[in-house]
Amino acid sequence: MALPFAFCPLQCAPMSDLPLPKIPSRPNTARLLISCPDKRGIVAAVSQFLFNHNANIMSSDQHSTDPEGGRFFMRQEFSLEGLDVPRAQFEKAFQEVVATPFTMEWSLSYANEPKRMAILCSKYDHCLMDLLWRVRRGEFDCDIPMVISNHTDLEVDVKAFDIPYHLVASQKGEDKRVSESQILELLRGQADFVVLARYMQILSADFLEQLAVPVINIHHSFLPAFIGANPYKSAFQRGVKIIGATAHYVTAELDGGPIIEQDVARVTHRDDVKALTRVGRDIERAVLARAVKAHLEDRVLVYQNKTVVF
Amino acid sequence: MALPFAFCPLQCAPMSDLPLPKIPSRPNTARLLISCPDKRGIVAAVSQFLFNHNANIMSSDQHSTDPEGGRFFMRQEFSLEGLDVPRAQFEKAFQEVVATPFTMEWSLSYANEPKRMAILCSKYDHCLMDLLWRVRRGEFDCDIPMVISNHTDLEVDVKAFDIPYHLVASQKGEDKRVSESQILELLRGQADFVVLARYMQILSADFLEQLAVPVINIHHSFLPAFIGANPYKSAFQRGVKIIGATAHYVTAELDGGPIIEQDVARVTHRDDVKALTRVGRDIERAVLARAVKAHLEDRVLVYQNKTVVF
Amino acid sequence: MALPFAFCPLQCAPMSDLPLPKIPSRPNTARLLISCPDKRGIVAAVSQFLFNHNANIMSSDQHSTDPEGGRFFMRQEFSLEGLDVPRAQFEKAFQEVVATPFTMEWSLSYANEPKRMAILCSKYDHCLMDLLWRVRRGEFDCDIPMVISNHTDLEVDVKAFDIPYHLVASQKGEDKRVSESQILELLRGQADFVVLARYMQILSADFLEQLAVPVINIHHSFLPAFIGANPYKSAFQRGVKIIGATAHYVTAELDGGPIIEQDVARVTHRDDVKALTRVGRDIERAVLARAVKAHLEDRVLVYQNKTVVF
Amino acid sequence: MALPFAFCPLQCAPMSDLPLPKIPSRPNTARLLISCPDKRGIVAAVSQFLFNHNANIMSSDQHSTDPEGGRFFMRQEFSLEGLDVPRAQFEKAFQEVVATPFTMEWSLSYANEPKRMAILCSKYDHCLMDLLWRVRRGEFDCDIPMVISNHTDLEVDVKAFDIPYHLVASQKGEDKRVSESQILELLRGQADFVVLARYMQILSADFLEQLAVPVINIHHSFLPAFIGANPYKSAFQRGVKIIGATAHYVTAELDGGPIIEQDVARVTHRDDVKALTRVGRDIERAVLARAVKAHLEDRVLVYQNKTVVF
Repeated sequence: MALPFAFCPLQCAPMSDLPLPKIPSRPNTARLLISCPDKRGIVAAVSQFLFNHNANIMSSDQHSTDPEGGRFFMRQEFSLEGLDVPRAQFEKAFQEVVATPFTMEWSLSYANEPKRMAILCSKYDHCLMDLLWRVRRGEFDCDIPMVISNHTDLEVDVKAFDIPYHLVASQKGEDKRVSESQILELLRGQADFVVLARYMQILSADFLEQLAVPVINIHHSFLPAFIGANPYKSAFQRGVKIIGATAHYVTAELDGGPIIEQDVARVTHRDDVKALTRVGRDIERAVLARAVKAHLEDRVLVYQNKTVVF
Repeated sequence: MALPFAFCPLQCAPMSDLPLPKIPSRPNTARLLISCPDKRGIVAAVSQFLFNHNANIMSSDQHSTDPEGGRFFMRQEFSLEGLDVPRAQFEKAFQEVVATPFTMEWSLSYANEPKRMAILCSKYDHCLMDLLWRVRRGEFDCDIPMVISNHTDLEVDVKAFDIPYHLVASQKGEDKRVSESQILELLRGQADFVVLARYMQILSADFLEQLAVPVINIHHSFLPAFIGANPYKSAFQRGVKIIGATAHYVTAELDGGPIIEQDVARVTHRDDVKALTRVGRDIERAVLARAVKAHLEDRVLVYQNKTVVF
Repeated sequence: MALPFAFCPLQCAPMSDLPLPKIPSRPNTARLLISCPDKRGIVAAVSQFLFNHNANIMSSDQHSTDPEGGRFFMRQEFSLEGLDVPRAQFEKAFQEVVATPFTMEWSLSYANEPKRMAILCSKYDHCLMDLLWRVRRGEFDCDIPMVISNHTDLEVDVKAFDIPYHLVASQKGEDKRVSESQILELLRGQADFVVLARYMQILSADFLEQLAVPVINIHHSFLPAFIGANPYKSAFQRGVKIIGATAHYVTAELDGGPIIEQDVARVTHRDDVKALTRVGRDIERAVLARAVKAHLEDRVLVYQNKTVVF
Repeated sequence: MALPFAFCPLQCAPMSDLPLPKIPSRPNTARLLISCPDKRGIVAAVSQFLFNHNANIMSSDQHSTDPEGGRFFMRQEFSLEGLDVPRAQFEKAFQEVVATPFTMEWSLSYANEPKRMAILCSKYDHCLMDLLWRVRRGEFDCDIPMVISNHTDLEVDVKAFDIPYHLVASQKGEDKRVSESQILELLRGQADFVVLARYMQILSADFLEQLAVPVINIHHSFLPAFIGANPYKSAFQRGVKIIGATAHYVTAELDGGPIIEQDVARVTHRDDVKALTRVGRDIERAVLARAVKAHLEDRVLVYQNKTVVF
């Protein structure tokens, strides 16, 4: 099944209503993401276009699934310092001169327009607090418009960061629809992407479709092993010698979305489920942080339920 | 389902027909493996017994699944230098004085009686050659009575080590039984355990039962992810960011036996199936080597389809 | 040079003035650490003694630098549930019956008497906050009597945990003695060990001697590489492909004390000093947390400026 | 001090006397390495040039030490299938149209002209055999014109691969010069680079200068820790919890050349020097193999005693 949200390199959400940047040292750069059928001349066309508009390329990554008939992906970060035309005109020209001839999907984001990251959490603090601290420390360049939880456990901690906290109790059966509607109402137009920081509810396909922005989840196993609930218990029962965590974009298929980042830790027969859970927490937050950072810096492209991470 | 071979700590295969040790520096030590219901006094009883017989404990490891009503595992390596009675008498006394009162399963192996490791392989050289080199280098203390393969590709390389090489072509359907019989005939009484060094045939439950010695397999995925054939292809298709390998004891359930050792390597979107296969080879041989070494040194105990690795 | 603090397995600090345990589920167990010349009969004597006093051994680890004439180390954790005599009597008996005959240095600590961990920090938040959160989360079983800092940056964050915060400004030259005296005054009798959570001052040998409890430091390099200031800058200049962090006990020799734990992360030519610092933060806090946990659980023994970590 | 060999991206050794490729599936591609002062328009100029000559870019990596006034590095691999002019003409045009205007150092190598890798070894087999097997297995695309050793231990094993083996006994003092001359005589014009596969002799600055091709060494420590002899012994004495290996280009400064690749393994107090040596062997050969592969694929650029590895 297709991704339930309109997630493609084209995703240039309107950003005009963003608050002023918090970090004055934010660089005046843009990030261009491209995905198109591979053929000769793409790099030449793009880089010539940027050069013509006086944009200095600061970093460039590309990937091709197959130089003969495959798909081509590119990320270029370039300085806007000497850009010869206003942004809108620049974007329009790119569409005409480069994107249309090569049938490109593309997006352009600006480093001084930080993304808005909404967070959903439940009772576990480790992923949530790790994200909040990284933002405060300046590791992540983003705004956090709100944290939504189905529990009150972390309310005080969130508010200590001056971040709005909303309680939306989870409901079952028919009423699950109600709580999802409440969440949608809160998020509508307020978030560029959503992070599930160990949010212990499964989001419906309908919810994802209406939300229409990328959702990043951290799953506490080395996917595709131990899909679903209680992966640490399953890992213990199988007697694995290594446990892991997986950050992925959420799709309607449970724990089946494109994997952004994974990591592992070694365990032994000494480690019971409680120990696996404790060790796993450190991997979870590290993996989620790296995935969020990659997403914030526009390093992730999705194609065929997999990711290219530049 | 139960393990198809009689693999338990009791496994003290008769070793009297072993060739003389190749390595003169082989230590004069014994390794005691114990498994029994946990209760007070086990360590005291065992260590008092060893002390009474003048056996100096050189290393000791223990594990309990639960001090209240769980199962207790222990490995002790001790010097035989000052042992006050012959081995047979020592073993008999241990059974009476310690093992019976505590309902122990136990085994005793002697470092100067190296295990006989038979190897089955197909066309891939990396695991086989790695094992042979480690033996030659003195990393593994074992004898290799034979290598059996369903292909001739590695015959010359095996013979260069002065190791008997047997070709047993694989057959399908009804005739699979025939080739398995040939292998059994070759192995009967000649091997203390068998290593599948990327042997590309599935062994039948019947074969395993008749073989009746432990079989170690290296599977080229991070089990339980990607069970069965072509795990690198599956890993590529799922877009995982880490691949792995798993060494496990073979049971009748495909890739379902007790895991001895696992390891992983980081990969990216750049790595196609061929690259995963190449990177994976290095993990496979490393993981298999560590598992074999642990088995050779009597560090592995099996319980409830899991391993304790001391 | 010798360790400036009286750190040996004998270290049974008086714990009678400790506050009531915060965590009701704290187990009723004791941990015995032993260090003595290796000879036959140690394990038998210890385990027989415990058995005689009805103490069920829950876990046991031992190590010998050399079974012939080396040094023997042991850690045993046992249940106090059925202990037949009061603690003081038990300890006295152990000294007479076991410790004296084997010339043992030993210590006994009780799981329901949590250690008091004082923390010194400067401006960096990541190690400090990680420790505080692990305590709050129940990962660490300890009390935090105070945090001392030479800066005010983290005062609000510490106080949010209801932990006393003391500012002791650092001074230079002759006055360094003054600030160290102030810290000593605060710590005297209040801490069982001290953690330097990226505290950016070098403590004098005199300070360490007077403090007389173990001090754990986290150094932001893979020691012994890059001793001293600015290790990330040095790592960048040397062009290493992996960076690391090291937790060690502090001695009078800068970054030269016994290493408790280390870990590393892979970096590339893309990573400048700022990126190394960011990546390094995650290793630092993970390594420090594992070292502190090992120390809290009495898993670390020091010998010849090295550690045995059970 | 400067690199003793003329190693710069310009290094396009004459390859006309190379034997015919062994591997028919060798791709018809070229690899372009560039190093120049960073400024606008480099990527545009290079990619436009390639496009104009009908060369399809298959992969591209770039790095800048600083977009403002730093140094720019690029590696591009492109197909030669549709190239419109002969190679010599193509190279001449590139110099005129692109390289000269941007003050580039550059090199062009062709995938169907495999490099000639000479190997120097002593008694240790693990790195040497690993390299030979990887070549045989098709992992490395190179020719091995010879193996030179100061011992006879591995002669039979080398000859089994049909590779010429030369014994050049090491000498001391004044006569060291003699043995180095003999090696130089053997290597002159026969090797594009040299690998020291645990060759236990220090090469003089004079030797390196006369050799004038890159030399890759594997050092058995995590440099810059434990420079020089017996690093495993030093690691044991320092009590590190992780050991490592480092592959680097050799310069006149002992163990001080540009690092290409490093890796590590976890060890414990249980591991004595012998165990560290055994564990280390696996890291050594893995690290050396990755470094050699990167060099063979023209992925390594040297700048200021550091490497960019694409």
